[in-house]
Amino acid sequence: MSDVPHMSAAEFRRQGHAVIDWIADYHERLESFPVLSQVGPGDVRAALPADPPEVGEPFADVLADIETRILPGVTHWQHPSFFAYFPANVSGPSILGDLLAAGLGVQGMLWATSPAATELETHVLDWLATLLDLPDRFRSDGAGGGVIQHSASDAALVALLAALHRVTDGRSEHEGVAGGRFAVYTSEQTHSSVAKACRIAGLGSDSLRLVDTDPRTLRARPDRLRALIDADRTAGVVPVLVVASIGTTGVGAVDPVAELAAIAHEAGAWLHVDAAWAGVAAVVPELHWLNDGLDAADSYATNPHKWLLTNFDCDAFWVADRTALVGALSILPEYLRNAATDSGAVVDYRDWQVPLGRRFRALKLWAVIRCYGGEGLRAHVRKHVALAAEFATWVRTDDRFELVAPPSLSLVTFRLRAGDDATRALMDAVNGSGEMYLTHTVVDGTTALRLAIGSPWTEQRHVRAAWELLRARA
Amino acid sequence: MSDVPHMSAAEFRRQGHAVIDWIADYHERLESFPVLSQVGPGDVRAALPADPPEVGEPFADVLADIETRILPGVTHWQHPSFFAYFPANVSGPSILGDLLAAGLGVQGMLWATSPAATELETHVLDWLATLLDLPDRFRSDGAGGGVIQHSASDAALVALLAALHRVTDGRSEHEGVAGGRFAVYTSEQTHSSVAKACRIAGLGSDSLRLVDTDPRTLRARPDRLRALIDADRTAGVVPVLVVASIGTTGVGAVDPVAELAAIAHEAGAWLHVDAAWAGVAAVVPELHWLNDGLDAADSYATNPHKWLLTNFDCDAFWVADRTALVGALSILPEYLRNAATDSGAVVDYRDWQVPLGRRFRALKLWAVIRCYGGEGLRAHVRKHVALAAEFATWVRTDDRFELVAPPSLSLVTFRLRAGDDATRALMDAVNGSGEMYLTHTVVDGTTALRLAIGSPWTEQRHVRAAWELLRARA
Ligand SMILES: Cc1ncc(COP(=O)(O)O)c(C=O)c1O
Ligand SMILES: Cc1ncc(COP(=O)(O)O)c(C=O)c1O
Repeated sequence: MSDVPHMSAAEFRRQGHAVIDWIADYHERLESFPVLSQVGPGDVRAALPADPPEVGEPFADVLADIETRILPGVTHWQHPSFFAYFPANVSGPSILGDLLAAGLGVQGMLWATSPAATELETHVLDWLATLLDLPDRFRSDGAGGGVIQHSASDAALVALLAALHRVTDGRSEHEGVAGGRFAVYTSEQTHSSVAKACRIAGLGSDSLRLVDTDPRTLRARPDRLRALIDADRTAGVVPVLVVASIGTTGVGAVDPVAELAAIAHEAGAWLHVDAAWAGVAAVVPELHWLNDGLDAADSYATNPHKWLLTNFDCDAFWVADRTALVGALSILPEYLRNAATDSGAVVDYRDWQVPLGRRFRALKLWAVIRCYGGEGLRAHVRKHVALAAEFATWVRTDDRFELVAPPSLSLVTFRLRAGDDATRALMDAVNGSGEMYLTHTVVDGTTALRLAIGSPWTEQRHVRAAWELLRARA
Repeated sequence: MSDVPHMSAAEFRRQGHAVIDWIADYHERLESFPVLSQVGPGDVRAALPADPPEVGEPFADVLADIETRILPGVTHWQHPSFFAYFPANVSGPSILGDLLAAGLGVQGMLWATSPAATELETHVLDWLATLLDLPDRFRSDGAGGGVIQHSASDAALVALLAALHRVTDGRSEHEGVAGGRFAVYTSEQTHSSVAKACRIAGLGSDSLRLVDTDPRTLRARPDRLRALIDADRTAGVVPVLVVASIGTTGVGAVDPVAELAAIAHEAGAWLHVDAAWAGVAAVVPELHWLNDGLDAADSYATNPHKWLLTNFDCDAFWVADRTALVGALSILPEYLRNAATDSGAVVDYRDWQVPLGRRFRALKLWAVIRCYGGEGLRAHVRKHVALAAEFATWVRTDDRFELVAPPSLSLVTFRLRAGDDATRALMDAVNGSGEMYLTHTVVDGTTALRLAIGSPWTEQRHVRAAWELLRARA
């Protein structure tokens, strides 16, 4: 039998140092790249050999190919002039925390399969709850607790499953959703992940009720929620879940959580709050109002992988009552039984999520919180909020432009008064330049551009340059 | 506004090199640790400060704490004497490929958000299909294609959603599953992820039909599947999905895929194959029989993160008809629209999975395939299969022990003839020693131990030592 060509420890050190240096260099030369990749469909594949190699190649060749074959096809999310979608931050501590997770290679599906993976996760989510000043009900020392989900989409899905479990007294586990007619409520501004969750959970899109928003603020209207729920109950449809957003994807609107929660609870429904992007901003005391109403929420999700310097994937998800969640998702086959689980004294996170296996994701969040500290995280959020406010003042000074909504945290939504076609042409022009990247949304039937600030490398000069480019191409 | 305390490039290099060296050292001293963590519930948390730091700390302190506060709570999945569950491999190329993904920090939800992330993934899954000699129908140049899922559990879930989409002609998207009565079929040996998928998809556990297995081989019995399906159809229940296993979790049984597929298709159901652990072994020509019947499968999943040297998470999932999958999962809100998507010329992987966001996971698999080459991957699999065969011969020589099933690839299932209590006591004794770690299952009502070989560091002497320890404590 031929020997297995594992990378030697010496080679791992050598190549590992080279990769670390490559990343440091990459971050230092981010501005030399066009933000938005300029390749066409198929270009990247065309540069790759059709067949896998028969004989192993040196890792150095892979690294060299990153430069020549991969980078041209990369849209640089870390670029200081990346203003598209919502940001997806990385930072030194996060990259290194994630690297430690890769090196340890533990799989934390059960407490027993690596107690530290579970306990550090519980602990760090308590820390984050402290930093964000979340209500005590989400802390692990009561009936609630936090867990890292892959994404806010997974969070919405498991919230729906927990809600179904609760509203059916656990019957949904056996009968599925065929036994009743169920409805989910959320605003028309809510992220599509909620509609996707309805589909995945077998409710279908017909079960989703879109709550009208106030045309000025784009916040969900409680009176409309109440009317929809009343109509459903009259028709024998069971309200399962209301999803409120803190920071909608389009314009960053913040729903009146407390009012929506009261209506949801009166009807026996679960209240989930999706604060995927905006939630982490509550690390700053002057933005604690973002949490208004959370003490009535059944579950809450925000993504450190968006705006809190932590590598994708890291969605922080809390429930006030973990038994509903575990009830919805726990199945214990013999081969996963173990003394710790049987004792009931530990958390097995596999029962809090869709997948079974789990990476040690708490390490990167732990590294971020420790290396920035509360102080550093606050400075990070404040900087972006201030930059967005400044950008908004510039938009106000140019008659050709208008703000679609007041800036929300680090997001500014604006358009050309000349109309949709002009606005879209402007977007294509600036994105095609490679000098910046921003995306659009449609608000009230008209196209608007979104400038979302989030890269750790973004300084005032980048926002200024973006504005100059927008003006020049308008 | 105070400055944000980002890690400087120089500090990132310094700390990054230190982490790389720490990982190399860790892998070199794996044998100095007890395989199974010896901490009790709460021990890890008790060693952590109750509150997050207010002022940032040096990363070096985090690294130091890994050693003192985290490692005692780690069960060492990479330890050469880790024989529990199924393995979850890491390797140098995979760790470094993953590190590159962390440094690039791109989010590949759409082709447009980083074309290279999508195209490399498609390309590498074609490569893997070549290496595993999978049927052409799964390749991306036809109607099919591959994607990296988080886990085999996610793969089973999305297969079920695609199956529902197909069997209802897309009505399930709107109506959910309440409009019909649906059933899913799989053997009683199948992994619990299929039952979990039924729950998540709103079918409930009542929809799951467990197909009897042949008591000798533990393979699903086609005649029993046919009987269950016939009974359901007579009762007006619609067969949606049949899941066949290649390598069951308990004993590594391989279902007769072709026969099950024929019955499934006759009834209009989808045939998904879960080969989470065993599938990658088909990289070896003498194990190509593992793929028997795959040319009739609608979808197929195997985990490079189990036994193909690739860090968690990396489940390789292929479909023969991607339109059903995308039909089940695609929702296109305005803010995700872009020219490339509208052109139809590209793949947007967000429509192939539960979450929206995606990490650049293809990099690590690409690095593994390139650095090992077909040759290296074959040597890796062959080595473990040979070690398991050897272990089985030893078991056969000791009258106190018996094999529960013939060894399956790198998995040996065995027990003490003295019965369940003795077998469990033996497991607890060897696991408590810290010298090795293996887990149990129940076969036909009796407890059996599973020795699953998978760590790249496992040599004959480790398997030998495991056997000596088992004999000594028996
Ligand atoms: C408000 C909101 N919710 C949910 C999501 C989905 O995020 P994820 O990729 O974590 O599922 C987004 C993504 O931008 C979002 O803006
Ligand atoms: C046969 C089989 N299928 C599925 C799984 C689930 O794996 P994952 O953690 O990737 O969901 C396992 C895990 O051991 C398995 O053995």
